[in-house]
Amino acid sequence: MSKIQPLSGFPEWLPEQELVQQQFLSTIRRLFELYGYTPLHTRAVEPLDVLLAKGETDKEIYVLRRLQAEAADEGEAELGLHFDLTVPFARFVAQNRGLLSFPFRRYQIQPVWRGERPQLGRYREFIQADIDVIGEGELEVRYDGEVVRVLHEVTEALPIPPVRLQVNNRKVLEGFYRGLGITDIVTTLRALDKLAKIGPDGVTDQLSSRGYTAAQIEGCLAIAGIEGAIGPVTEAVRALGVSHPLLDEGLDELAEVMAACAGAREGAVVAALHIARGLDYYTGTVVEGVFTDMPGAGSVCSGGRYDNLASMGSKQKLPGVGVSIGVSRMLGLLFEAGRLATTRRSPAQVWVIVHRDDERAEAEAVATALRTRGIPALVSTRAAGYGKQIKWADRLGIPYAWFPAKGDKAHEVKVLSTGAQEPASPDTWTPDPALTALRLLGATQGSS
Amino acid sequence: MSKIQPLSGFPEWLPEQELVQQQFLSTIRRLFELYGYTPLHTRAVEPLDVLLAKGETDKEIYVLRRLQAEAADEGEAELGLHFDLTVPFARFVAQNRGLLSFPFRRYQIQPVWRGERPQLGRYREFIQADIDVIGEGELEVRYDGEVVRVLHEVTEALPIPPVRLQVNNRKVLEGFYRGLGITDIVTTLRALDKLAKIGPDGVTDQLSSRGYTAAQIEGCLAIAGIEGAIGPVTEAVRALGVSHPLLDEGLDELAEVMAACAGAREGAVVAALHIARGLDYYTGTVVEGVFTDMPGAGSVCSGGRYDNLASMGSKQKLPGVGVSIGVSRMLGLLFEAGRLATTRRSPAQVWVIVHRDDERAEAEAVATALRTRGIPALVSTRAAGYGKQIKWADRLGIPYAWFPAKGDKAHEVKVLSTGAQEPASPDTWTPDPALTALRLLGATQGSS
Repeated sequence: MSKIQPLSGFPEWLPEQELVQQQFLSTIRRLFELYGYTPLHTRAVEPLDVLLAKGETDKEIYVLRRLQAEAADEGEAELGLHFDLTVPFARFVAQNRGLLSFPFRRYQIQPVWRGERPQLGRYREFIQADIDVIGEGELEVRYDGEVVRVLHEVTEALPIPPVRLQVNNRKVLEGFYRGLGITDIVTTLRALDKLAKIGPDGVTDQLSSRGYTAAQIEGCLAIAGIEGAIGPVTEAVRALGVSHPLLDEGLDELAEVMAACAGAREGAVVAALHIARGLDYYTGTVVEGVFTDMPGAGSVCSGGRYDNLASMGSKQKLPGVGVSIGVSRMLGLLFEAGRLATTRRSPAQVWVIVHRDDERAEAEAVATALRTRGIPALVSTRAAGYGKQIKWADRLGIPYAWFPAKGDKAHEVKVLSTGAQEPASPDTWTPDPALTALRLLGATQGSS
Repeated sequence: MSKIQPLSGFPEWLPEQELVQQQFLSTIRRLFELYGYTPLHTRAVEPLDVLLAKGETDKEIYVLRRLQAEAADEGEAELGLHFDLTVPFARFVAQNRGLLSFPFRRYQIQPVWRGERPQLGRYREFIQADIDVIGEGELEVRYDGEVVRVLHEVTEALPIPPVRLQVNNRKVLEGFYRGLGITDIVTTLRALDKLAKIGPDGVTDQLSSRGYTAAQIEGCLAIAGIEGAIGPVTEAVRALGVSHPLLDEGLDELAEVMAACAGAREGAVVAALHIARGLDYYTGTVVEGVFTDMPGAGSVCSGGRYDNLASMGSKQKLPGVGVSIGVSRMLGLLFEAGRLATTRRSPAQVWVIVHRDDERAEAEAVATALRTRGIPALVSTRAAGYGKQIKWADRLGIPYAWFPAKGDKAHEVKVLSTGAQEPASPDTWTPDPALTALRLLGATQGSS
């Protein structure tokens, strides 16, 4: 046995970290459901042609084969692991269209796989939490606003550093480029997408080598530099003197999305016209979220509008919009930076002391009474000295120790953090929520 | 695009079914945590040599390769998808031993993959919910009793047909066989494991062709037929007149496990000496659960004691015991039989009516007020006629429709199932839990 070691790119959390992840997931689920998003779980695999339907992908795909495949299996479709949750969702909707109600809102929390070079916060297997809405025939921009607003609310509710959502609209960029006389939109987007990496000079080199005029390049760089509240941003675009119907349409849509987040904390949701979301399937709204105090870490959530994905080649239009939260990515960055720690390594709230090994039944009875009332409890492994038993409880971060009644001594419960001890009945005692809530140490809250 | 169709062996649930699955999972999580089991999530992949560590496996493994693998990756370990959650857990414990507290209790709810021939309730990708305890050096049989008891409590709490847990102990069988002078335990277990399939005559043929005596075969078949409460079962074994120290040890352990479930409903936990759990890694306790009124469906949960798995080749002993609930299997069987249905296709509890398209803001304000107080709400897609809007709500199974205040008319809320309508304030109204609980239609409850 050689391989009991971590695999690069496949993070696993220790119990105290996994309790944090579970807290993240339950907060995310709760908010998604408040907005009426229904849970969905798709299979992890898709036929390769579904995964590659949008042509070449830069998400490196894992392909499966059965170790003991048989001749009879040769006709089976070749399968790969999904690299996001949007493509499987679009396929699910196309497949089950007649059984769903539209607009169809769903959330989905599952791992995805990409065979990329692993690095901090970039994994080969990672958990995403997505919401999407898909409409039949058409889907108003209102839904773009809704998903961005829900994303904003989730990032404010999680115990994470402040998140800035940077919103743009592909139509703004495409309309602006066309207004400048540029026709090769993909090449332009691709070059501008590298702006942060290669700088204005790099972009200028790339575009001028392809015959772009100085005015065109200047325009492309100028619009990429515009960021802020929607009013000033619109003015700044207009001041560049470019006009095109698609630009107007994009600015209107962008304004509607920003209006949906009008109540957000200052700077939490901004229009940022450099955001393009690479070569993905987006057609309108695009959004990327970053930790404002970890600027080098890249985006921790993202999404946008896709009008042609769920159609899966059919004539019927099934436009959609959605966002994705990089749960593993956020946790990896924050654990690594020491910004999320917890005192709990067990969901148990009470550690029940065992006085003597032949008095275990009394301790078990206390635990059963507590559990019946919804209070998680563990019975001590052994009847060691009280100090030792309390040390075991403390190592797990369990807040209370329970001393079962013995002889004429009543039940007593001890708060481990203060040492306070008092009589209690297993049928009526309730823990202090402030002591049993999963406490995060060193967590940086959002603005809330 | 050819492949937007179901893949045999990879079940996916529709929204109304997925809401049932989520209810199952939250019940399971709650009970696991009440007993102090801590959540864990392992990567989906393991190096092939970890998956194959126990030699040949009958769980057909899916092997991964990257579609665009590079020469630089050649040194990487070959990876496969895990076929259960026990092997990854054992590997995780061996890998992180110094960072864990023992006995280490964890629960884990994840998909697993097996490239088997798909059939009803047997899938290639399916979700399991497991608990396991691993000890350092030793692990008392008490923990075998604990995991079987927790399994029993979960099966009673879920909205499923009555489950019978059939408990045995490998030492009972091995001790009994050795007491009969049989030395090839694996061959004997393998033959007896087929008893239900090939019948006593088939087993007799197999064993006599290998030179077993008539008395040996008769003994093997006799012990396989013993099932019931622990007292009569022990007597019945003793009456067969076979003795061996390992048999005594096994019967003692079996009695301790059964005692842990002493409070169970009659017939819900029985000693059943034909249970062997195939050629898995079990060394003591084994358990299998079946729906008593779907006898042909096979086991829906199972588990046992493994003493050598987590050691992963090291000299240190890390014995464990655990059980696994076949969540997808249970749901697949019950959905197929029409025994689990639900009225809800959305987590929303309130559908907010839109009077006119230019009065959407008022409806949104109601929804926001409700959500702030934890009540999931959806705003109507369009300002259609009230009848039509209510029909949309009803199709999703949402129990309430809300009419926002308009002019001098106050807010009103309507119970869709009764038609009752009354004034309400979005800041104080609360839904009736009996109406908003996820209702299962046609569910067969356990004994509770």
